[in-house]
This record gives sequence, C-alpha cells and structure tokens, in this order.
Amino acid sequence: MSQRSEWAEGQAIGELMALPLQYPQLISLAAGFVDQQSLPLDAVRIACEAVMRDPVVAQAALQYGATPGHPPLREWLLDRQLSQDGMQSESHRFDVSSVVCTAGSNQLLQMVSECLLDPGDIVLCAAPTYLVILGTFRNMGARAIGVDTDDEGIVPEALAGRLSQLQQRGELGRVKAIYVVSYFDNPRGLTLSAERRQQIVEIAKRWSREANSQIMVIDDAAYRELRYTGQEVPSMLRFDEDRDTVVVAGTFSKPFSPGMRVGWGILPEALVDPVNNVKSNADFGSPNFNQHLMTKVVELGLYEPHIEGLRSLYQGKLDTMLSALNDCLGGQSSTSWKRPDGGLYIWLQLPDGIDTGRSGSLLTRAMDEGIFYVPGEYCFAAEGEPIQKNTIRLSFGVQDDDGIRQGVESLARALQDSLA
Amino acid sequence: MSQRSEWAEGQAIGELMALPLQYPQLISLAAGFVDQQSLPLDAVRIACEAVMRDPVVAQAALQYGATPGHPPLREWLLDRQLSQDGMQSESHRFDVSSVVCTAGSNQLLQMVSECLLDPGDIVLCAAPTYLVILGTFRNMGARAIGVDTDDEGIVPEALAGRLSQLQQRGELGRVKAIYVVSYFDNPRGLTLSAERRQQIVEIAKRWSREANSQIMVIDDAAYRELRYTGQEVPSMLRFDEDRDTVVVAGTFSKPFSPGMRVGWGILPEALVDPVNNVKSNADFGSPNFNQHLMTKVVELGLYEPHIEGLRSLYQGKLDTMLSALNDCLGGQSSTSWKRPDGGLYIWLQLPDGIDTGRSGSLLTRAMDEGIFYVPGEYCFAAEGEPIQKNTIRLSFGVQDDDGIRQGVESLARALQDSLA
Repeated sequence: MSQRSEWAEGQAIGELMALPLQYPQLISLAAGFVDQQSLPLDAVRIACEAVMRDPVVAQAALQYGATPGHPPLREWLLDRQLSQDGMQSESHRFDVSSVVCTAGSNQLLQMVSECLLDPGDIVLCAAPTYLVILGTFRNMGARAIGVDTDDEGIVPEALAGRLSQLQQRGELGRVKAIYVVSYFDNPRGLTLSAERRQQIVEIAKRWSREANSQIMVIDDAAYRELRYTGQEVPSMLRFDEDRDTVVVAGTFSKPFSPGMRVGWGILPEALVDPVNNVKSNADFGSPNFNQHLMTKVVELGLYEPHIEGLRSLYQGKLDTMLSALNDCLGGQSSTSWKRPDGGLYIWLQLPDGIDTGRSGSLLTRAMDEGIFYVPGEYCFAAEGEPIQKNTIRLSFGVQDDDGIRQGVESLARALQDSLA
Repeated sequence: MSQRSEWAEGQAIGELMALPLQYPQLISLAAGFVDQQSLPLDAVRIACEAVMRDPVVAQAALQYGATPGHPPLREWLLDRQLSQDGMQSESHRFDVSSVVCTAGSNQLLQMVSECLLDPGDIVLCAAPTYLVILGTFRNMGARAIGVDTDDEGIVPEALAGRLSQLQQRGELGRVKAIYVVSYFDNPRGLTLSAERRQQIVEIAKRWSREANSQIMVIDDAAYRELRYTGQEVPSMLRFDEDRDTVVVAGTFSKPFSPGMRVGWGILPEALVDPVNNVKSNADFGSPNFNQHLMTKVVELGLYEPHIEGLRSLYQGKLDTMLSALNDCLGGQSSTSWKRPDGGLYIWLQLPDGIDTGRSGSLLTRAMDEGIFYVPGEYCFAAEGEPIQKNTIRLSFGVQDDDGIRQGVESLARALQDSLA
C-alpha cells in the first residue's frame, strides 16, 4: 500500500459514522447529520418532475457534464455569494470559472488541499477545528497546527504569533493555508466577526509577502445558511480585494440534502486550473443529474422556503438543548457552554480532570446510559495548542426534542458518575 | 502549488471534453460519451417517482449514507458479478464489504491508484490504453509502462518479458499493478480471451511472489454490458482463486447514464479498508440519492431492457461506421481496423508516415473538414512501447447514423489531402 494510504488510516469520521449503525439503540448527539424529518421531500420531488418532464433537460441531466459543473448552477451560486457578501456591484470582478461544483464541500476541501499541500507542508487551523479536515490534511502527509481560540473564534494575534514562531524555526515557507470554519463553527459554534475576518485575511496576505509564497485562507462556510439569531456577516471573500487569497467552500448538504451531495468552491484564479485538473483526474465532474436537480430547486424558488423552515426547526432544537443543559448541568462548577447563533453544534467544557475521550471513563458510561457524543480530543490538531480532553461536541441536528432532552439527561447522569 | 497539482496538469481528457463546447459545429468522433437519444428517461422518471413516493425511502435517499455505498445496491452488484462470471456457487467466498460505490468507475480507479501508488511506482498497461488513466497515474507521480498488444489485447509473453526486464533493472519492487480494459477495450475495441485473462492473473501472482510484494490486476470492465456479438467471457475475478490480486471496476455510466455517475469496485480484502479510508477523506461516500435511484432501477427490472435496447442501437451504429470505413477507406494500403464485439470504439491504423496528433497536419485538416477524433498518441504511456502516431480512436457512441457516415467521409477527405 502507498504512503498516502497509510496516512489515510483511522479517519475518525469513519468510526463515528459507523457507531450509530453498530449501536442503533443509542441516542446520538455525535453525528453532524441533518434532521431526518426536515429533508426536502417535496422540493426534490417537484425538481425531479421538472427535470424529467422536459426531454431536452432530462437528456442533458443524464449525460456527462462539464468538469467544473453545470454552468447555470455555478452562475446562481456566484450571484448568491456576491449578494450575501454585499458585493453585487463588484460582480464584474468575478467570473463563473472561479466556481467549481464538487461532491459536497468536503471534496472541494480535499481537492484544494491536494493542490496546495506537499508532504510536510503546514495548515494552520483553530484549536479545536472540524475533525474531518484533520484527517484530510493527514492524508496528504501535511501537518495541521492548532491556533488558540477565544469565544469569538481564532484569535488573530495568536495566528500572527504562530506564523512568527514558524518563521523563527525556518518553517514559514511550509505554511500553505489557514483553515477556518467561519460561521457557527464545527465544533465550537462560534462565528468570526467581520473585523476578525478582515484581520485574518490581512495576516495571510502580510505573511504571504514575508514568506514569498501564497498562504491561502480556506473559509469553510458549510453552516452559513443555518443562522437563527444575530446579524449576517460577509464571508472572507469580501476582504480579499486582490482575489488571490480566499477560497470559500459551500454546500447544499446542511441546508438542503446531504444525500444530494452537491457542494462547491469559489476559488482564487491561481487555484482554478489546478482544482479542475485534479477534479478531472478524480471523476470528470460531480453528478450532472444532481446539479440539474439543484438548479431546478433554486429556479423554482424551492430553496429559500426550505431554509426558512430549517432555521425555525433547528432554532427550536437548539433552545431545547440549551434548556436541557441548563436544567441538568447549570450551575455545576467548571462546566460551561456558549449559545451559538446558528449551525448544529454546542461545545461543552467540563471540569479539568474529566477525560471525555477513548481513554477516559465518561464515554463508556455515557454509552451505558444510552448516548454518545464526539469527544473533543478528535477536534484538535496534533501540534499547536494542547488537546482539551475535558470537552465534548454535542449536535442537536438529528434528535427530536425528546431525544435531545433524554440525551442531555443521560449525559448528565454519566457525568455525575464520573465526578463521583 | 503542490507537486501533485503539477503532476495533474494537462490532463488530455479535459482538453478533449472542452473541444465540442469550443467547436459545437464539428462532428465529434472523439468523445466516449453515450448516445444522447438513448438515455434512460423513462427508467429514471419511474425510479425517481418510486423513491420519492415512499417517505421512508425518500428520507433515507436524501440523508447521508454509508461511505462504501448503499448496501442493497452493493448486494445486487456482487450477485450480478458472480452470476456473470459463473461463480454463483462460490458466493460464500465473497462478502458485500468488498464492494464500494464511487463517482463513476473513474473515481474507483483513482482511489485504488492512490492506495497502491507512491511517486515512482510502476503500473503496466496495454499499449495503447485508456487515455484518462494515464493522467490518473501521472497525477500520483507514478510511471505507466506500455506492454505490447496484438489483435487479442495484451500479449502475456510481452507482459512477463516486461516484468523480467524490470527485475533485471532492480525495479520489480516498484511494480504495483497491471491495468487492463478487458472488454472491448478503450481504445482498441479488443476483448481478452478467458485464456489470456487467466494467464495475466497468473503472471501477476507469479511475479508478486518473485517481487515479494503484491502486484494487483485492475480489470476495468466499464464496457462489459455493451456486447453486440460473440460469447460472454468471465472477468479476471474468476481466475483469482485466492482473492488477493484482482480489482474489478464497473459503472452504470456507459450502460445507463453518465450523469447519474454511479460506479463501483469489487476489491480484494487488502484494499477494502484503504479504499474506504481514502473515500472517507474525499467525500464520505458518493451521493446516496443516486444509489437509491439505481437500486430502484434494478429492483423494478428497468435495467436489463434498457441495456438490450442499447446493444441493438450501438450495434447498428457500429455497422454504420464499419460500412462507412469500408466505403471510404477500404482497400487503401496500410489502413486497417478491426471489428470489435462491443463497446464504443474503433481503432484505425493509418500508413506509417501519417501523424494524427497535435504536431501533424491531419488533425487540423480533419477539423477543417468538420470533424475531430482522438489522436492515438494520447493513448500511449510515456514508457514501454513506441507511440504509434499513425493511429486514431474513433467513437460511434454520440453521432447518429448520418453523423457517423458524414464524419467518416470527412475524415477520409482529410486523409486523402494528407496523403496527397
């Protein structure tokens, strides 16, 4: 087997996705799956009928498509991005060729990583960060290094400090990207303010000049549509005036359907050809049929009402989880969480001595009590900030209100045993 | 950009797929696309309705699925494989975990390559072979080495000779796979006999022992369902009694719909975990929705009648192309082709002096005459057998009878100019 194959071993997401199948009786507060009842059955049925009704459209949908994806969908995605970022008036600066459709945003992240990273290269990311991306970087033989976060996300000074430290070690040239989940992040639920976004992009640009090689900012906006409270913030793209630094990754998986598996990226010029070359090698382009379906979904005005419904559904579930946490763990010393403005996750900090991971006793106790969660240790890069073993990622995406309440109660019981 | 990204540059398939868009007025005898009129509109409409009618099925289809793919589809694929290979009675030796669904068989080939190949590793393939796979291997930094073919495909003695030569050079340990398009191959249209299949698997096993490391046989069976004449031949799997050597790659793209993008692999034990790890890193699994649709297609008995129709359609087109070639180029000295038993391609050999490629004059002349084709030079590995610049891959997949006849007539005119 290849070196790459060894690096790909033991991807945590695989284990986590297998657990619910292995223990179907358990309540999962772990997986970032979406609510089963909320899936857009009507919208997909209507879109299928619309695509299949017109033989010309149906034939096009069932044939091979262009490697970067279906042009009308990419046009729509770019327009929406610019409109959400308040940049409609600058649309002349953007070309649809910068948009590429992929199998979820995950494939986009994987392909961008493949284009940027040689073995030994470095990506800076939040500590904690999206656990799957750590496997993706490892699969390239790259090093992920965690950067300190506070309650507003990555701390710009800590980011600059880390870059300076790497420069001193002679490793600045190996830094190829800064990866950020910028909206309701996975796992902490935090959203970067516009000010921090701007600072991060500026730090990337400043240190790119210093390093004499481009440090990209990968803005993983997977949860952007799932905002329940607070003001909209533009993506990092808004602060990349030269259009050479920021990649935005988006997806229909969270706000529509993961089974449809349509994601995308908006790329700086330098990445367009490399990503399309890699995409061309991997699969010649993602399923054309699904891109035609999603085009119909947006054309027929079925997307916005669906997201509206989702927001209200998840906001209710978030409230349920917060209220259950408050009832069961409120006032416990050294136990805390923060209300996210959106997304699917709450990050729980427990007293220092607790080990929530595979080598601690809480996970087994929790499973005995009938639930499981994502141990925080999965979400930390191997280098940089210390792993906080006393943390847990809880998701309120999948369970209904009863499940969420029961799940939190079970967790609280397990925790009581551990503290006892 | 990464080393990988540089290796991925200039993938010929990208250029070839862009040409029809660039010159829409030209008749393409190049792309291996499928017939537009034959796409399974009714079958897909019925399957969509069946999936969306049942809320439980619809929800499952729109949710995340298991990384290796939808279990009922994988069961069906394995059963069909064993039945086609005459191995039903040995089904106890096979487990559904050996089946993984991918975005077309191309992604399977890419992932298997990723698991097997380090930079500098070697894959042996036919000369000529499937042009896209050469880019895939190059993208890994691997070396493809061509092996001599005759009118029955790869010559086993030439394969053994090449291995022996590599052993003498101390490079045997770098040989990781033998890649073969075993049915109506791309580009020559040849089908390996059962005897040659067995010989190739035995050569792989013998030299694996010699090299003290496994040399896999990748049996790309993309065109298997498109047989118009001749007797069915089992896949290489039939000759791999220890189940440690052969990977079979299959797809619904050619016999059903490329836009659906469902392919698969049947893997030896040693590759199951590595491929699933890589898949997990890349996209967590291919679109669940499409796998549910294809499951309905096969469950409702819509697949077989569709293939029957395709066989008769393509056989007619093949006859048209053969008859046009006979009318326009028959009896010309040093110009030859062979009738394939299936698939989408005819391989044309022209007089020695003709250069059909980018540096010759025929390609421009042909485009002036209103057609284009795949220059044979794209289909040869950089090492091994010499590139035959006097060859052309013609596809009869896309054009209707008139287009095929006109296309061949235009090619003959361009050729006459080149010979004049």
